[in-house]
Amino acid sequence: MNKECYEFFSNSFPIWDKLSEKERDLVLHQSSLTEYGKGENIHGNTGKCTGAVFVKSGVLRTYILSDEGKEITLYRLYPGDVCMLAASCVMETITFDVFVDAEEKSEVCIINAAALTELTAKNVFIENYVLKLTSERFSEVMWAMQQILFMSFDRRLAVFLLAEIEKVGGDTIYLTQEQIAKYMVSAREVVSRMLKYFSQEGLVEVSRGGVKVLDRERLREIAG
Amino acid sequence: MNKECYEFFSNSFPIWDKLSEKERDLVLHQSSLTEYGKGENIHGNTGKCTGAVFVKSGVLRTYILSDEGKEITLYRLYPGDVCMLAASCVMETITFDVFVDAEEKSEVCIINAAALTELTAKNVFIENYVLKLTSERFSEVMWAMQQILFMSFDRRLAVFLLAEIEKVGGDTIYLTQEQIAKYMVSAREVVSRMLKYFSQEGLVEVSRGGVKVLDRERLREIAG
Repeated sequence: MNKECYEFFSNSFPIWDKLSEKERDLVLHQSSLTEYGKGENIHGNTGKCTGAVFVKSGVLRTYILSDEGKEITLYRLYPGDVCMLAASCVMETITFDVFVDAEEKSEVCIINAAALTELTAKNVFIENYVLKLTSERFSEVMWAMQQILFMSFDRRLAVFLLAEIEKVGGDTIYLTQEQIAKYMVSAREVVSRMLKYFSQEGLVEVSRGGVKVLDRERLREIAG
Repeated sequence: MNKECYEFFSNSFPIWDKLSEKERDLVLHQSSLTEYGKGENIHGNTGKCTGAVFVKSGVLRTYILSDEGKEITLYRLYPGDVCMLAASCVMETITFDVFVDAEEKSEVCIINAAALTELTAKNVFIENYVLKLTSERFSEVMWAMQQILFMSFDRRLAVFLLAEIEKVGGDTIYLTQEQIAKYMVSAREVVSRMLKYFSQEGLVEVSRGGVKVLDRERLREIAG
């Protein structure tokens, strides 16, 4: 029995009220709290069906991987978010698979695939909840793809920097150029060159461990 | 009142049995049968919310469009298929929009957005059906994106040709090199060069209006 996950679910699970006592019991007994270290793989490497992954603390990154090892980041998950794509085996309509890594030390509550299958088969509200979460991710993936496929790099970098400072709530992004390149599916050299250009233009200030945004207004103009 | 659509729905709508008499009436009065000519835009150009588009005959193509006019084909729809993304306004979780064109003369039954909103809000099974159709498209879009992002061009072209002949059921694809390039988000020159290579290798035979596949086995090897 996992009390920590039970409490977490009852507080942050919007459809908790639609679950019967028996279903809540099932969730309670078939979920587990796990801690992952920075960089650790949560889903994808083993080929197993993980289940629904609820983020209690930390940050997860979801990505796809080519045969040649090229990664494309689809989206990140923060506390309160759910990764349903790690339970794709439960959903007939989802025929692709993704990888999920902990981007920093993270605690997650996982409802295993068997329990999730039972819950979605018997309760249409749970199935709808799962499908809604999935289609939200569809929107995020489309956004990511459009960034990659359509935008010129200055614009993409501006959009990335603005999105990052909005997330962290300050004006400094504590990511190395290597990390930025990885998130943007680009090369470090390309990021480095563009940041130098932005820096010369007085848009940002680049230091060892991060990038400080100096002129949001002009960055927004570039972002379009 | 649209009898043709009513009949079409009752025959090919898998959740028709879950609709009440009143809901069926709503579908009947709020749907319309429209014919589109080859190349005509069905959804996207006007910025309006079209509704759920059911393909009765013909072929539709769904794509996204960059600011610079670059198109990326996401998937095509055949008789019996439904395009829910043309009703994205009805779904809170879908925050992107797509374009839908008739690729040849097509007849579609459209349930308008207002009626669809009412139906999904009041009947959890209809909502479920809409969400499932949407997540199926998520899988197709992921497939298309992986083709574009990860594969080398010979492999992509082989996959494309094999998929096409499987669809049409013969061994000849009646598309110009220009059209193939458009579907593959590539340039005509690139397609032309690779087809010439395939042709020299005895894999295909290229004629004015199409491409005939001669050696499926080796094409499959290239496709991986």
